[in-house]
Amino acid sequence: MRTRAAVALEAGKPLEVMEVNLDGPKAGEVLVEIKATGICHTDEFTLSGADPEGMFPAILGHEGAGVVVEVGEGVTSLEVGDHVIPLYTPECRECEYCLNPKTNLCQKIRSTQGAGVMPDGTSRFSMLDGTPILHYMGCSTFSNHTVLPEIALAKVRKDAPFDKICYIGCGVTTGIGAVINTAKVEIGSRAIVFGLGGIGLNVIQGLRLAGADQIVGVDLNPGKVEMAKRFGMTDFVNPNDVKGDMVAHLVELTQGGADYTFDATGNVQVMRTALEAAHKGWGESIIIGVAPAGAEISTRPFQLVTGRSWRGTAFGGARGRTDVPKIVDWYMDGKIEIDPMITHTMPLEDINKGFDLMHEGKSIRAVVEF
Amino acid sequence: MRTRAAVALEAGKPLEVMEVNLDGPKAGEVLVEIKATGICHTDEFTLSGADPEGMFPAILGHEGAGVVVEVGEGVTSLEVGDHVIPLYTPECRECEYCLNPKTNLCQKIRSTQGAGVMPDGTSRFSMLDGTPILHYMGCSTFSNHTVLPEIALAKVRKDAPFDKICYIGCGVTTGIGAVINTAKVEIGSRAIVFGLGGIGLNVIQGLRLAGADQIVGVDLNPGKVEMAKRFGMTDFVNPNDVKGDMVAHLVELTQGGADYTFDATGNVQVMRTALEAAHKGWGESIIIGVAPAGAEISTRPFQLVTGRSWRGTAFGGARGRTDVPKIVDWYMDGKIEIDPMITHTMPLEDINKGFDLMHEGKSIRAVVEF
Repeated sequence: MRTRAAVALEAGKPLEVMEVNLDGPKAGEVLVEIKATGICHTDEFTLSGADPEGMFPAILGHEGAGVVVEVGEGVTSLEVGDHVIPLYTPECRECEYCLNPKTNLCQKIRSTQGAGVMPDGTSRFSMLDGTPILHYMGCSTFSNHTVLPEIALAKVRKDAPFDKICYIGCGVTTGIGAVINTAKVEIGSRAIVFGLGGIGLNVIQGLRLAGADQIVGVDLNPGKVEMAKRFGMTDFVNPNDVKGDMVAHLVELTQGGADYTFDATGNVQVMRTALEAAHKGWGESIIIGVAPAGAEISTRPFQLVTGRSWRGTAFGGARGRTDVPKIVDWYMDGKIEIDPMITHTMPLEDINKGFDLMHEGKSIRAVVEF
Repeated sequence: MRTRAAVALEAGKPLEVMEVNLDGPKAGEVLVEIKATGICHTDEFTLSGADPEGMFPAILGHEGAGVVVEVGEGVTSLEVGDHVIPLYTPECRECEYCLNPKTNLCQKIRSTQGAGVMPDGTSRFSMLDGTPILHYMGCSTFSNHTVLPEIALAKVRKDAPFDKICYIGCGVTTGIGAVINTAKVEIGSRAIVFGLGGIGLNVIQGLRLAGADQIVGVDLNPGKVEMAKRFGMTDFVNPNDVKGDMVAHLVELTQGGADYTFDATGNVQVMRTALEAAHKGWGESIIIGVAPAGAEISTRPFQLVTGRSWRGTAFGGARGRTDVPKIVDWYMDGKIEIDPMITHTMPLEDINKGFDLMHEGKSIRAVVEF
């Protein structure tokens, strides 16, 4: 079949919206009509050329929602008409990782997904001249139709709006999941969130959901305050306004350091501050942000010997097929908010404007509606 | 009263054995006759001048065992004749830290202990000319008699030999505790221990006690192999014999990386290898060793985002008054071994020989008997 997609032809260039060929689903695969997709910094990271694993031409996008159009041979958990959210972290429920309760990093299709192809080693996408186009993060949601493995689709309720729940495919789950799955924040905790963008706001509402007593937000942009307060921030710190040592300021503000700190900036210096602002004896610091290639974190080992833990999270520690439908329920039940974070919507033709808005810091999340 | 002690008069000089004055216990304090004390690298670290917090003159030593001679006003948990092990990490059971099950770092007397004095701000030790001598780590076990706060003494059974259980005051508890309190290693785990000295051997026997399936030891000295095997090591790796990348070698040996890795070297490069040799998704790396002043650990944040945790431990995460008596029981019941690790004993007059043996790598533990 033919479908319309925004194609990343090469690094550093805008996406080009065009007709592409899409082969139907093979065994264990599912054809999905994407109804909406968010534009995430990770797409930008790859498009910019900064991602050392980036490959072109490719169809980017990994934060979508849509409807099952066709299922391949052997697919048993999904049927035509099901509403689904693509999962860049799949959940096969049978690999060594899925069977270990300590991780969500299913490895079943890791190597082919990383190579931009389906599990059989080939791509379903091609140019009209036959040139193959690579998949991206196993999702390629910047296409009106896409093919995914069955294990990379979460089945969700049919009354949930696509243009909101697409955000659960990455940002919402990453932020909330970092709090509830990775950190397992307890009621009454004190926490600090570095970076009040799309991920940081979701960490904040995750902390509110978990019953944290103090939720400190840190950002250089005071324009982020109003929205962050809406999601549960109790204290704001602008590093530009802090005289003297930032760690000492945060430790004092949290009465000895935070029980949990979260980096949602990707800046390795901020990651260090986040660790060192965690409470002596038991504070945990969780890295969510993706750092530039080659960047390294560092600290004195004394920080760990005196009881701080340094950890990280991917996709919020969520097992997608199990956890994503629950988060959709939480949204529909009003336990979490998404609507205020979807600041812009646009048709596929305007997708590059969505990237511009993200660059300029004007959007929290821009969503493309098909 | 007067007693005999080995005094550290200044950094970088040998200890001097001499008569010193010792004031009796004030309220909440206890006078202890030390019967035996181990010589630990931490004593050497301070004596060498490398410890930025080191102060002189002081009576070093923090790994002792002895008998209560006199109790100060208000002491209720100990009486004359009790056998005790001094605790450089006390357990007051009422501070914010003692009341938090996630840490063992009691802070009740932290500031005065760090300043080399008793909780009232003064020292009990002095030269015969009246010059004050500082306490060390709140213990000063290189003295035949010493005074400690009640909360810094673990009461242990009377049939346990002083010249063996003194080692439980630091090395044994630090190594075994890192496994059972900090890492909470599960039966069937794979583990790597870097550094097969006095701490590393105790990590190894802790892992055996915890039912680990694979216990890899890493050391540059093949002379350590025999003893490490005796304590439970299943595989030995000498980095000098590994061609190519050390992390890749260890990951292959442990079939994907170790569930738990332990640094008992204090070398920050080794700490990085230990982290990166932990299993993707769930591996935890525990720093035990004390690094040189100013040294920093570093890694790519990707190592944490893909599920590894970087942690540390002090005194093996043990709460001394509660846990040390249990470890003494384990020794007396044959669940753990100590005797083979006490490679040298000597009278106080020869204490500097004990430091020499440690320098030369000839001793695992040298113990001074009074």
